[in-house]
Amino acid sequence: MRDAFHEELDAINATLADLSKRVQKAMEQATHALLTADLALAEQVIAEDNQIDEIQHALDAQTIDLMARQQPVASDLRALVVSLRMSADLERMGDLAHHVAKSARMRYPATAVPPELLLTVQEMGAAASKICKKTTEIISSRDTKMALELEKDDDEMDLLHRKLFVALLDDAWPHGIETAIDMTLIGRYYERFGDHAVSISRRVYFMVTGEYASEE
Amino acid sequence: MRDAFHEELDAINATLADLSKRVQKAMEQATHALLTADLALAEQVIAEDNQIDEIQHALDAQTIDLMARQQPVASDLRALVVSLRMSADLERMGDLAHHVAKSARMRYPATAVPPELLLTVQEMGAAASKICKKTTEIISSRDTKMALELEKDDDEMDLLHRKLFVALLDDAWPHGIETAIDMTLIGRYYERFGDHAVSISRRVYFMVTGEYASEE
Repeated sequence: MRDAFHEELDAINATLADLSKRVQKAMEQATHALLTADLALAEQVIAEDNQIDEIQHALDAQTIDLMARQQPVASDLRALVVSLRMSADLERMGDLAHHVAKSARMRYPATAVPPELLLTVQEMGAAASKICKKTTEIISSRDTKMALELEKDDDEMDLLHRKLFVALLDDAWPHGIETAIDMTLIGRYYERFGDHAVSISRRVYFMVTGEYASEE
Repeated sequence: MRDAFHEELDAINATLADLSKRVQKAMEQATHALLTADLALAEQVIAEDNQIDEIQHALDAQTIDLMARQQPVASDLRALVVSLRMSADLERMGDLAHHVAKSARMRYPATAVPPELLLTVQEMGAAASKICKKTTEIISSRDTKMALELEKDDDEMDLLHRKLFVALLDDAWPHGIETAIDMTLIGRYYERFGDHAVSISRRVYFMVTGEYASEE
């Protein structure tokens, strides 16, 4: 049997996993809106970001309240501090999905992504989705091995990010500056999304082991 | 007389203010390195970012240790949680200075910023410096009025950021895609730097009043 403190900690962790699922869905929908110039879907992602922010605010209040009531020490305190940090990462990942959706909205009825880059952006979206799905699992399972592996999944995102720049810098790039600016920012949103997922996986590693995962 | 807890809290706050000063200096030096293609200075900023990260790690450990030993509740607990968040913002601001310095290094011996944009980037650097100086004061004084005002200082940064895009999107832009990509990313580093300073000022407001400053 778990005691009251650990039951509440489990509930906080379940909410973090739920937030991570919502963020994954937001980025998937934002990517779809971006690739297909789907304005309604972009608006939906933009509107739903408020829900993510509200869940995060409530979760943080609950976490701080648990700190105040139960006065945890050692690994229990560490778990609560790490929860606050993970929720901040997830909130930011939600913001980045929101930014992608805003890029889709800004160029509607045109598609922000030129034909040559549709596949790369689709791959970045798929990488984001895979990374975020794993992040949910890492939060739920506290699997440190999986947490260490996530860095490799994020390397895939970095490769796609570089591929994007190679295309933009090709002498034959036919789309002018505005599209290049859009794609630079959109590429950065996906890259930062992956970075925050890596942060979360490192935090889970720290929470479980009390040690920092060695950085690259 | 302050009790032992509040003396330690003051010490944490003093370290936060010191971190903010270091971050200000890092961004000033990074801007100078960027505008003058000063490789040695860029390398210095890149190297010194590790110090900022180390101070932040040590500060967070001290903050968590104080939580565990003194078991604060209510506003004292809130102050410690907010400290952890402010240190994360400051660490990220240090990263952004580091990114600006890396942009300077990447284009050396050329200057990453084309002549037409030197003034705008200089102004963004000056805005970053002003905002960060005020952030240090807000951390030290916990002045809620000044904390609310910082949003307006950041509006200046957003205006400069838009001015940068206007220049990039001018039909007469003569510098091609690579420079446009560089300037898009550099502009975003300054903008995010300002955003994190606004976050810190909102956190101070929340710490003092227990209420969230109304967002725009």
